[in-house]
Amino acid sequence: MSETEKNVIKKVVWPGSTQLAPVPSVLVACGGTGEWKPNLITIAWAGVVCSKPPMVSIAVRPERYSYAIIKATGEFSINLPTAKMVKTVDWCGVVSGRDHDKFAATGLTPMPGSKISVPIVAECPLALECRVTRVLELGVHHLFLAEVVAVQASEHLIDASGRFDLEQDGLLAFVHGHYYSLGECLGHFGFSIRRKPGAIVRK
Amino acid sequence: MSETEKNVIKKVVWPGSTQLAPVPSVLVACGGTGEWKPNLITIAWAGVVCSKPPMVSIAVRPERYSYAIIKATGEFSINLPTAKMVKTVDWCGVVSGRDHDKFAATGLTPMPGSKISVPIVAECPLALECRVTRVLELGVHHLFLAEVVAVQASEHLIDASGRFDLEQDGLLAFVHGHYYSLGECLGHFGFSIRRKPGAIVRK
Repeated sequence: MSETEKNVIKKVVWPGSTQLAPVPSVLVACGGTGEWKPNLITIAWAGVVCSKPPMVSIAVRPERYSYAIIKATGEFSINLPTAKMVKTVDWCGVVSGRDHDKFAATGLTPMPGSKISVPIVAECPLALECRVTRVLELGVHHLFLAEVVAVQASEHLIDASGRFDLEQDGLLAFVHGHYYSLGECLGHFGFSIRRKPGAIVRK
Repeated sequence: MSETEKNVIKKVVWPGSTQLAPVPSVLVACGGTGEWKPNLITIAWAGVVCSKPPMVSIAVRPERYSYAIIKATGEFSINLPTAKMVKTVDWCGVVSGRDHDKFAATGLTPMPGSKISVPIVAECPLALECRVTRVLELGVHHLFLAEVVAVQASEHLIDASGRFDLEQDGLLAFVHGHYYSLGECLGHFGFSIRRKPGAIVRK
């Protein structure tokens, strides 16, 4: 970068906000056990928090219908939707399970978890079965920390070499209130120090 | 979905893993204060954990060079890189600050934080200034929970109407070990219940 270019980079300062991006936009399933009917809630405030044990977090407002369910059952599934499911994903984020049976209304299919009593979403290519380990009351959101106890993957996305190819379906990203499809694959982790960077880009 | 289609969705069950996706791939800056030189580390295990107060989390292995710095100073910045910066982002994730001055080696420009003593990265369109509130020792990663105390945005991305247009530059997503650019904008949060969904897609 030249000195001229450096001078062009002027910044404006804003108050703190949640502008981390892109973030996932996932269908979290809960309930379907005990007194609770199965429900879906769309969550963008989700992230990986530890590799071993594999752990994730989801932030949920206590007033949301799903909050009490997840707190009571201690389980949920994170289902990765495809870009084609964007309208369903959005709808599950703006209406409440108090007023709607979201599985019935969307036509999504609940399937049994393998290690949890909560369903997964059959139509999502990848489902993470999660068991809550801790709840942190941070502010308007409470943070559920959870261990991923199993993963279910759609068999038709596993190619002849055994590789799971999510790209056939294409995932959904969330950036400052907008949904995006994913674009081009730009490289594999570690490509910058390999001799042939072109060789490791997914095609 | 027809019964035939439902039957096609067969799942395979895998052990739990960190397959949440897409996740961000961000340049975290630390140091540049006290005894610590400025350093950069690429983090994909990052997420939003609360809207009010605005809070984020980053997961860092204790053996990483940046870990002790962030723990000692209690501050870091999250800098959102563009897709064009992918090689730099990857390199900052695979080499250690023990062996490299990453700002010097990459040519990235440290700029002062407005509310923290740690620098931000001038070339990134958006920087979140973060102050650590808690550290959770979850496993191989420890989780830093932090409040976003200020945001710095590149002025040239603010259009005439005052809208911040990140799309001019394009962000970077991370999916199962691969970097991706973002693709098409598919809609705005809430579009599924509006009368004219076409009207709210960014162009």
